[in-house]
Amino acid sequence: MTRLWYGGDYNPEQWDPQVWKEDADLMRQAGVNLVTVGVFSWSSLEPSPGEYRFGWLDQVLDLLHAAGVSVDLATPTASPPPWFSRLHPEALPVTADGVRLTHGSRDTYCACAPAYRSAATGIARALVDRYGDHPSLAMWHVHNEYGTVCYCPLAAERFREWLRERYGSLDRLNAAWTTAFWSQGYSGWQDVQPPRRTQYLVNPTQFLDYRRFWSDELLAAYLEQKAVIRERSSLPVTTNFVFGGWVPVNHARWAAEVDVVAIDHYPTRTDAGAEEQTAFGADLARSWAGGRPWLLMEQAAGTLDDGKRLHTKEPGRMARHSLSHIARGSAGALFFQWRASRGGSEVYHSALVPHAGPSSRIFREVVALGSLLPSLAEVADAEVVADVAVLWDVECWWAMQGTHLPSSSLDYLSAVQDAHRHFWRAGVTVDFAEPSADLSSYRLVVVPSLYLISDEAAASLAAYVERGGQLVVGYFSGIVDPDARVRLGGYPGAFTALLGVRVEEFHPLTEDGEVQLSSGGRGRVWSEDVEAVSAEVVDRYVGGVLDGKPAITRRRVGAGIAWYVSTSVDVDTAAGLFGLTGSAVETVRRRSGDTTWTFLVNHGASEVVVPIAGVELISGSAVDGSLALAGGGVAVVRSP
Amino acid sequence: MTRLWYGGDYNPEQWDPQVWKEDADLMRQAGVNLVTVGVFSWSSLEPSPGEYRFGWLDQVLDLLHAAGVSVDLATPTASPPPWFSRLHPEALPVTADGVRLTHGSRDTYCACAPAYRSAATGIARALVDRYGDHPSLAMWHVHNEYGTVCYCPLAAERFREWLRERYGSLDRLNAAWTTAFWSQGYSGWQDVQPPRRTQYLVNPTQFLDYRRFWSDELLAAYLEQKAVIRERSSLPVTTNFVFGGWVPVNHARWAAEVDVVAIDHYPTRTDAGAEEQTAFGADLARSWAGGRPWLLMEQAAGTLDDGKRLHTKEPGRMARHSLSHIARGSAGALFFQWRASRGGSEVYHSALVPHAGPSSRIFREVVALGSLLPSLAEVADAEVVADVAVLWDVECWWAMQGTHLPSSSLDYLSAVQDAHRHFWRAGVTVDFAEPSADLSSYRLVVVPSLYLISDEAAASLAAYVERGGQLVVGYFSGIVDPDARVRLGGYPGAFTALLGVRVEEFHPLTEDGEVQLSSGGRGRVWSEDVEAVSAEVVDRYVGGVLDGKPAITRRRVGAGIAWYVSTSVDVDTAAGLFGLTGSAVETVRRRSGDTTWTFLVNHGASEVVVPIAGVELISGSAVDGSLALAGGGVAVVRSP
Amino acid sequence: MTRLWYGGDYNPEQWDPQVWKEDADLMRQAGVNLVTVGVFSWSSLEPSPGEYRFGWLDQVLDLLHAAGVSVDLATPTASPPPWFSRLHPEALPVTADGVRLTHGSRDTYCACAPAYRSAATGIARALVDRYGDHPSLAMWHVHNEYGTVCYCPLAAERFREWLRERYGSLDRLNAAWTTAFWSQGYSGWQDVQPPRRTQYLVNPTQFLDYRRFWSDELLAAYLEQKAVIRERSSLPVTTNFVFGGWVPVNHARWAAEVDVVAIDHYPTRTDAGAEEQTAFGADLARSWAGGRPWLLMEQAAGTLDDGKRLHTKEPGRMARHSLSHIARGSAGALFFQWRASRGGSEVYHSALVPHAGPSSRIFREVVALGSLLPSLAEVADAEVVADVAVLWDVECWWAMQGTHLPSSSLDYLSAVQDAHRHFWRAGVTVDFAEPSADLSSYRLVVVPSLYLISDEAAASLAAYVERGGQLVVGYFSGIVDPDARVRLGGYPGAFTALLGVRVEEFHPLTEDGEVQLSSGGRGRVWSEDVEAVSAEVVDRYVGGVLDGKPAITRRRVGAGIAWYVSTSVDVDTAAGLFGLTGSAVETVRRRSGDTTWTFLVNHGASEVVVPIAGVELISGSAVDGSLALAGGGVAVVRSP
Repeated sequence: MTRLWYGGDYNPEQWDPQVWKEDADLMRQAGVNLVTVGVFSWSSLEPSPGEYRFGWLDQVLDLLHAAGVSVDLATPTASPPPWFSRLHPEALPVTADGVRLTHGSRDTYCACAPAYRSAATGIARALVDRYGDHPSLAMWHVHNEYGTVCYCPLAAERFREWLRERYGSLDRLNAAWTTAFWSQGYSGWQDVQPPRRTQYLVNPTQFLDYRRFWSDELLAAYLEQKAVIRERSSLPVTTNFVFGGWVPVNHARWAAEVDVVAIDHYPTRTDAGAEEQTAFGADLARSWAGGRPWLLMEQAAGTLDDGKRLHTKEPGRMARHSLSHIARGSAGALFFQWRASRGGSEVYHSALVPHAGPSSRIFREVVALGSLLPSLAEVADAEVVADVAVLWDVECWWAMQGTHLPSSSLDYLSAVQDAHRHFWRAGVTVDFAEPSADLSSYRLVVVPSLYLISDEAAASLAAYVERGGQLVVGYFSGIVDPDARVRLGGYPGAFTALLGVRVEEFHPLTEDGEVQLSSGGRGRVWSEDVEAVSAEVVDRYVGGVLDGKPAITRRRVGAGIAWYVSTSVDVDTAAGLFGLTGSAVETVRRRSGDTTWTFLVNHGASEVVVPIAGVELISGSAVDGSLALAGGGVAVVRSP
Repeated sequence: MTRLWYGGDYNPEQWDPQVWKEDADLMRQAGVNLVTVGVFSWSSLEPSPGEYRFGWLDQVLDLLHAAGVSVDLATPTASPPPWFSRLHPEALPVTADGVRLTHGSRDTYCACAPAYRSAATGIARALVDRYGDHPSLAMWHVHNEYGTVCYCPLAAERFREWLRERYGSLDRLNAAWTTAFWSQGYSGWQDVQPPRRTQYLVNPTQFLDYRRFWSDELLAAYLEQKAVIRERSSLPVTTNFVFGGWVPVNHARWAAEVDVVAIDHYPTRTDAGAEEQTAFGADLARSWAGGRPWLLMEQAAGTLDDGKRLHTKEPGRMARHSLSHIARGSAGALFFQWRASRGGSEVYHSALVPHAGPSSRIFREVVALGSLLPSLAEVADAEVVADVAVLWDVECWWAMQGTHLPSSSLDYLSAVQDAHRHFWRAGVTVDFAEPSADLSSYRLVVVPSLYLISDEAAASLAAYVERGGQLVVGYFSGIVDPDARVRLGGYPGAFTALLGVRVEEFHPLTEDGEVQLSSGGRGRVWSEDVEAVSAEVVDRYVGGVLDGKPAITRRRVGAGIAWYVSTSVDVDTAAGLFGLTGSAVETVRRRSGDTTWTFLVNHGASEVVVPIAGVELISGSAVDGSLALAGGGVAVVRSP
Repeated sequence: MTRLWYGGDYNPEQWDPQVWKEDADLMRQAGVNLVTVGVFSWSSLEPSPGEYRFGWLDQVLDLLHAAGVSVDLATPTASPPPWFSRLHPEALPVTADGVRLTHGSRDTYCACAPAYRSAATGIARALVDRYGDHPSLAMWHVHNEYGTVCYCPLAAERFREWLRERYGSLDRLNAAWTTAFWSQGYSGWQDVQPPRRTQYLVNPTQFLDYRRFWSDELLAAYLEQKAVIRERSSLPVTTNFVFGGWVPVNHARWAAEVDVVAIDHYPTRTDAGAEEQTAFGADLARSWAGGRPWLLMEQAAGTLDDGKRLHTKEPGRMARHSLSHIARGSAGALFFQWRASRGGSEVYHSALVPHAGPSSRIFREVVALGSLLPSLAEVADAEVVADVAVLWDVECWWAMQGTHLPSSSLDYLSAVQDAHRHFWRAGVTVDFAEPSADLSSYRLVVVPSLYLISDEAAASLAAYVERGGQLVVGYFSGIVDPDARVRLGGYPGAFTALLGVRVEEFHPLTEDGEVQLSSGGRGRVWSEDVEAVSAEVVDRYVGGVLDGKPAITRRRVGAGIAWYVSTSVDVDTAAGLFGLTGSAVETVRRRSGDTTWTFLVNHGASEVVVPIAGVELISGSAVDGSLALAGGGVAVVRSP
């Protein structure tokens, strides 16, 4: 790519045609070069069954093309029209409680319903037939934020097919699910059900498999639409990934099926946590993209939503978030949505053109960011530099979302975020990687609470250490296999030999509980009764029932070192462990050949002087060895 | 009226006939002159379908008549008997989740079910046929606390009819509901549904319209019964209004259809908030009654229920609450219920005759209050004096009850209560008024968070200012039109011209957050980035992202002044704004011709000396220019 | 019995046969002499309808017999196999909301479903046919933790039959349920429903009767299985009682139908509260057993589950809990389960053989406890010595679980636990007793919040006092009769005459509220406006609305004294009232003839010297008059 994308979701169906012309003018003014059209247009495109109305979209695409704005054309399948629900009530989703949901929001379909799948490919075909050759098109955008689950009989049927495929025999399923416990042994496939509401605790492997199943089933739905598009168009096809505990999608696996990894990113914190979440989301997207450029498909222009209220982004913060994404590999900065809606459920969702109109601070910042981005276009294909990896495995996350763990404070995402935060605060860029990935390029690999891991992946990590890697394994790792069955003989199961430790007993800490370490540090969340079988003790518990027992150990293995950290350590302890120091500005390096681009984003209020030399791209000025970065300022320095 | 009503709900069907005689004696002893009979008597009156048992009620009415107690005869339609639910299961209500409720409580019907409507007018007809001419009757009481909603298919059908009536065409409905957002466009009326549980955020206008619909539908049910009664009786017909966030009833509109506005009032606070809530409820009732006398139909004699426990009212507090209601226009003081039940769901609901029996503090206070009221009868027709109005609009409340607002701390009722409290604390009586009302008699009109307002109502408010009125508009006002669609170009939408301000961005505050004002005051809940386009700045934000920006503005318009207050200001700031000072006793004036009656209620523990002259009605003593009011004391002074 | 049982639930169906042999060896090593087999084995025993697989169980029983381990053979009816739910979907349970639950957990049946009842007796018959004469068998274990309710139509039908039996006529039911309130009068049995979700507050007597009904219905289900077993086996039959607010089982009544009272006991606190809960549970079990030996059927070996996390039991704590149970009458110490599961919903439930295997602290402690128990066998038939009783009545608990009480802080179980705790802290062993029990052997009887009591039981308590007993009645007692109908004329209803007090009004305290007493003590939760009609005042309220009013009273009645305590008093006040002093070690005495065994359990960390003489059984050493008990230590001293 030779340019950075800038723009966002454009929903002209909400506005009169005279507004469209103003939109085109304002887009030009703002430097917008890509808009996503059609995400929620099904009822506008097909207002009644089989009656298509393309006229408005014809006009819009022509208008955009004339304005030099490319189009990411979406299939509108995330929200079928009301008539669809009337004709196919069996395709309305059902909760685990058995409540059949009604339309009147979005995502009111079950992706297992044949009627839905057929209607979805139908509208996709109609769109590609009509617009496959439209000169404005740059990309296809299938659906929106796949992730909706359902517990209806149709989903149950598909689940059983998926299980049959995965396990082959009921004996295998019964073993994997440990159905001998509580008399759950299945003697016929037809008896297997989704983990609907039941009397008491659910079966954890059934729960895990239902998430695996939905990821695969939704992927199948995506691939059906992609195939329809591919028949008639060679443009890139993608879908926008959304990340959340309720989204059972294995994005790492899905990434192989999209031409560009695209994510939506909405921080849920309003303080500095928003910047940290931005880096986290961007680094995760890059890992899904295998290090190649990816695309920030949605963010909010003016606000941060903490779930209770909208916090208005301070001046410059939108640009800083956008630059942080680009620094970490995004091929641009897109937003939801272009123009704030006048009504509907997200009437207060922030937009590039707010309710107040273009005469507004937000739109002025939009214009300023749009004028800045072209100067950064040369970085678009450079790779992000990182020599540390943090492991992330979505199946491990799912396995820890049940109700059966020894502590409700165990939280996989938090453990991974903690690890990422330690490096983020020190200005060290990290990659995320899957446990089975080739990690040989990293000097250090951090493994937060990897509860579920296959024997193969564990062997791969051992080999990484043997060859000289430094591996830091966190508490509650290696416990179960991919069937969520515990490895016997002592925790941390898959890692006991590598780490040279054996744990008989967990000691979960209370919500506010802390445990002291002999180094002066502290642990939270969790502790374990560690026996250092063949490991050195690096830090010990002080006081309490574990007084004097190992807390952190280290074992030399081949050319490398394997550490075990049996509690959730505080920032300083982590910094000591990883050799980290603080950093006043967010610093990310990208490289192509001999050229390095250093992104500097000052999230603080004070000026920071950064030792660096090269050319600053935004200003075009030479930098002699030191750059004074004002509070809130951003800079991108190319060094030869 | 020439007397004040005193009494309450009387449920003789819970007791043996020998108790009825004791009741009649005790009522005489207490000065009771009105009881409501029959509210929950359906299963006693019609124990099986079509089998009426009137004997017990014949006896009771005769007994009451002999005791000189008038009867407010109720139709029992708020609780159909169990046999009704068996015969008409389709008439049991359904929640938004699709749960069909069972009988065994009260209000277990859907008011849209034809079988229910028909049964309700049937039992009403049977009652008026039998008792229409009974000499004990003073009033008819239809149903009880209308406000129950349902989401069943029958309700859906009626909702669609109502929408067809309101909008005429689907195009109008689609525009009003902004259905272009999230692909909700309707192409057939049959596709429209109630806002049942759905996948994600509901459509806010659909939500609002469902509340409007239910208010109208319940009113229709009321009017059907009223018509049946009117055919055979010319006595006043009313129903008791109940007020709560779950009650979708537009009482201001309903008031036109009752012969006497009657309310139930149960404070939910146990501290001085209970007195404030009493004043609030009474002032609201008076506004519904258009300033004419209204009737406190229910209160609790001995306790305040905060939702977690019953707080016992301190000695004298029942009388003070009753006097406060009468001061503010009530034509009496009635209670639920006469005699505490021995069993059932409200077995601990306080009563005039408690479980302990008439030998009890409560009953002694009941007798004392009953002996005091006749001395106040002369005030019954006098009007309450107020020159300040606070606007209240139930549709605005409903519009703010969705899930779509920029902050979950925005709460219309709280904003209105805050405004009312400022005046209440200063001893200033205020009226409530609807936005479209004629406000010319008020020197000051306060407009708390009037989120939704029509153009016509906004014009009427502007005209009020032009003609010399003082208008104080609160934050988050004027934003949307009656379709809940945002006015574009800058907030506060409908008020930007009048106030001379323009707001681009909201800055919601966190739950504990505060913002400082240059006057020394503080704001909570909310703040806004205000541009004073043609207004003077009265107060400014200090510190934070809005440092130096206008917080309170003022604009002279014609002969009046329009203020804007962009945050929820503290008590002192409000007092300064409205020119208020504290008041040690609750003071309300009523007037008829040249005579003024001043009600003085001392909610404090200490004696207060009030400068006033005239005759104190309770004691019959002359007051020379100063009245010493003991702690907890009440006085009513007639001044010529 | 001449030995103490030791062992626990053994679930061999979760493991390969080679593990069974290791199990047998380890059991021998640990001194295990009883295991419960088959609790959740239905799908292993009858994998498809009518196809029995007994081979594995044959092997297991033979192996156990060879190892000298007796078997408590369970019927597996607490978890029907998945195929059962497919064949009998009407037998899946339904919540009060109408949600039909799915299988995939345990207890997914409605015990009112004829298909379930028939299948349950069927599998019980198959087991007794095959194993009735197996030499390993020591006991039969029917089902597991009876207590599951359902609201389906089949349950409704059985409920109506039960009501018809209880009340005989609808008139009686209508009176008992006070159906005249809210028009709930029933004119046909078919109209009565379970207390399913309804519009507003439920009928409290309907709610209470539904719990009574389920206790009786589950008992009937148990008795059906017991009868099937008894036809072919004369061994003891039992079921394991579980205790919780959601369990509508009247264990006192059930106890008559089991040959050995058996309980499961899982403390929910992790601090010293766990020891207190242990004593509470054990004392309750002994009361159900009528003072005879009972059996601790389940406890957790290594952890305490507070609902949020598993707390690891400190070294020695398992033994102390076990000894505390045995001290209080248990005929042994059994656990759930023998070997920790590798998967399933309770994969982290602690076990005798943990995931780490027999090379573990836990298993070493298991072995140690197993080697200690035989030395205590001589106590097995001795009776526990107690001269204080605390009343407990499960129907009172149920009656206070509705939504209608004057305060949500009223909690019957807490009130009883408070009373028990006062004695537990002082090292005084108490019995629990039902209100109608013969109490003549007790010097003191404590009656915490006995809200519901029959006239007969109240008369029995009065007679106890007349004959010289000391009776201490707590607040909110005597209020309602068995129909949950309030006694009129003044609280505490059934006790006014006995106590010589009359209460007109309750004064519930807020959650953090306290009331001062003239003695210096404090009250919480509740207070009352007490009139001492014929009682002496022992303590008074100070300050607040009750200033100077009686808080605690005393009345001499015949040869005894009746006290009334109108608030929830603090520890010191209670200690003063009951003449208690603290105790450093838990001390329980058992007696048989002239021999006394004193159990001493030191839950503290410091050594305590106890004045005692005799022979310490564990060590076999003579004790001369003083025994030094180390922190965490246990001792059992036989004194002649």
